[in-house]
Amino acid sequence: MIKISIDAMGGDHGPSVIIPALAKVAKRRPDVNFLIFGRTDAVRPELDKFPILAPISQFVHCDVSVRMDDKPSQALRQGRWKSSMWKAIEAVKSGEAEACVSAGNTGALMAMSKFCLRTMANIERPAIAAIWPTVRGESVVLDVGATIGADSHQLVDFSILGAAMARSVFGMERPTVGLLNVGVEEIKGQEEVKDAGRLLRDANLSSMQYQGFVEGDDIGKGTVDVVVTEGFAGNIALKTAEGTARQISGYLRSAMSRTLMAKIGYIFAKGAFDRLREKMDVRKANGGVFLGLNGVVVKSHGGTDDEGFAAAIELAYDMVRNRLLDRIEADLDLFHARHPCSAPRTAASEQADQ
Amino acid sequence: MIKISIDAMGGDHGPSVIIPALAKVAKRRPDVNFLIFGRTDAVRPELDKFPILAPISQFVHCDVSVRMDDKPSQALRQGRWKSSMWKAIEAVKSGEAEACVSAGNTGALMAMSKFCLRTMANIERPAIAAIWPTVRGESVVLDVGATIGADSHQLVDFSILGAAMARSVFGMERPTVGLLNVGVEEIKGQEEVKDAGRLLRDANLSSMQYQGFVEGDDIGKGTVDVVVTEGFAGNIALKTAEGTARQISGYLRSAMSRTLMAKIGYIFAKGAFDRLREKMDVRKANGGVFLGLNGVVVKSHGGTDDEGFAAAIELAYDMVRNRLLDRIEADLDLFHARHPCSAPRTAASEQADQ
Repeated sequence: MIKISIDAMGGDHGPSVIIPALAKVAKRRPDVNFLIFGRTDAVRPELDKFPILAPISQFVHCDVSVRMDDKPSQALRQGRWKSSMWKAIEAVKSGEAEACVSAGNTGALMAMSKFCLRTMANIERPAIAAIWPTVRGESVVLDVGATIGADSHQLVDFSILGAAMARSVFGMERPTVGLLNVGVEEIKGQEEVKDAGRLLRDANLSSMQYQGFVEGDDIGKGTVDVVVTEGFAGNIALKTAEGTARQISGYLRSAMSRTLMAKIGYIFAKGAFDRLREKMDVRKANGGVFLGLNGVVVKSHGGTDDEGFAAAIELAYDMVRNRLLDRIEADLDLFHARHPCSAPRTAASEQADQ
Repeated sequence: MIKISIDAMGGDHGPSVIIPALAKVAKRRPDVNFLIFGRTDAVRPELDKFPILAPISQFVHCDVSVRMDDKPSQALRQGRWKSSMWKAIEAVKSGEAEACVSAGNTGALMAMSKFCLRTMANIERPAIAAIWPTVRGESVVLDVGATIGADSHQLVDFSILGAAMARSVFGMERPTVGLLNVGVEEIKGQEEVKDAGRLLRDANLSSMQYQGFVEGDDIGKGTVDVVVTEGFAGNIALKTAEGTARQISGYLRSAMSRTLMAKIGYIFAKGAFDRLREKMDVRKANGGVFLGLNGVVVKSHGGTDDEGFAAAIELAYDMVRNRLLDRIEADLDLFHARHPCSAPRTAASEQADQ
């Protein structure tokens, strides 16, 4: 049995999307259990619609909900100890649940997760990992926005975290890992990225195959299973790809509705278009995974529907089932056993910490 | 009359693509003139195929060609004073030509351009600007890879350069400008980006409307006319978008050829697909513009065809015609007249200079 704690008040639609999502997961994963946090008046009526949830879930009332536009510090001040978001995270800390899923605001969820769960030993900063659809399947990309800037040691940490996630989620033995870099020779890349490359090559870890530098267009090609970068470039890459996909969908839609011939063509090719839409369906890869904390926390898109939220829960479920945290700990221990004295931090990284 | 100097030896295909491109431009821009540099045995036979070029072009033999895989330092050592790339740039410096176009390797072209033309007064570093197709038309995005890292003053410089380019190329009076940033509240962005935002807002320049921060998905939406960022994130954003576009084209192609119904649909909707392909045609927006130098240099994609190279020449032509450099100089003078004492550089930016 795998127990997942749910912040039922997060996201743009709250319980009206989240509770139906739980019902979907309950049908597909028979051994799942839920610990649900939220306001009774909002959650109860939804819960009553899905009898399948009654025997496998437990509901806890919370007065406070974190708003989507709360600043992290504000959310922490007002919602700590008592909000549905905090309670859901705390259930992971106390061991009542094995993973937490929320569609609430990313900054608040990260701030509370860090405060409550703390980073793992040997990890200085957490990362947010995304599952990125590629021509060859799916890749893990991190950090997509937890922190700005990362020094070489943090990039190595992210590589270990990302590789462990790829092993848990994709069932791979030894995923390939690449460091995101720019392709102009000689000015090639930040010093941190070069140093991280050297560290990874020297370490020759059994948990991953380090493949060197990759560029932005390698992400969609699926050149490597795990793409590692710092949070500023990673967030911009992710959002740029989402923007480009939406832009092309828009072109396609308008092209297919402009002429009668195109409309007829669309009717014939509808099956193909449906398959294409499914391929491009972001809901399927929904969920930013917080890595590097003493617990599994998955952030679902705030605007997602029930299918999207269900995908985020199933991602959390799979990672628990495949013992993500144990893998990360083992890999970190192995790396640090071989590299007892890490190089001192550079001034640049300290500064990036603000 | 506008005279453009051409490095005929650059790119994956050399004169066999570049000379036909000149002929295309000659037909479309009657007052263009070319100063062509390259090896006689490679260029002459191509030139002889296009009589239209004879009266409007001048050919100069150069023994040395920069290779696509030369490192910038190597290219500079071996190709300075004598290669077709160098000579084409030098023609701009001497005033023989008003702009230079090359499909040669980016690093070498930038190194030679910096060495030969030097950066403009008040500009510390050049940027590479790309024209990015958006839902609303086109935007200028810079820096897409000239240098790694940029401090707040350099981001302000890039904003002025990009706005001047938007005015020259799109014929706008007062383009909107946004600074690329990440969207997570409070950890929002690098200090440099925040400082640059403050500087731009306080300056309230007549040459642009500063709109604040934008995120990765705003680029494709066309939220602003000019998107400003440092070269690492900019290069990754550009390549990621290219990769995503290629990925979706691939999905579409395979979806449309899988079943008989889809194939029939494709035949009906062929006109629509052709229009879509045209929309997504990267050749049309071909050309990275080097900004901040004492001269106009346009880098065409190395693998482009004659239509793509022609687009790069026409971009250079339009910028000369619309007096890009004069505009930049006037805007810089205006900004620096109002801000006589710039703040001292931060430690972070010095470090980024390596």
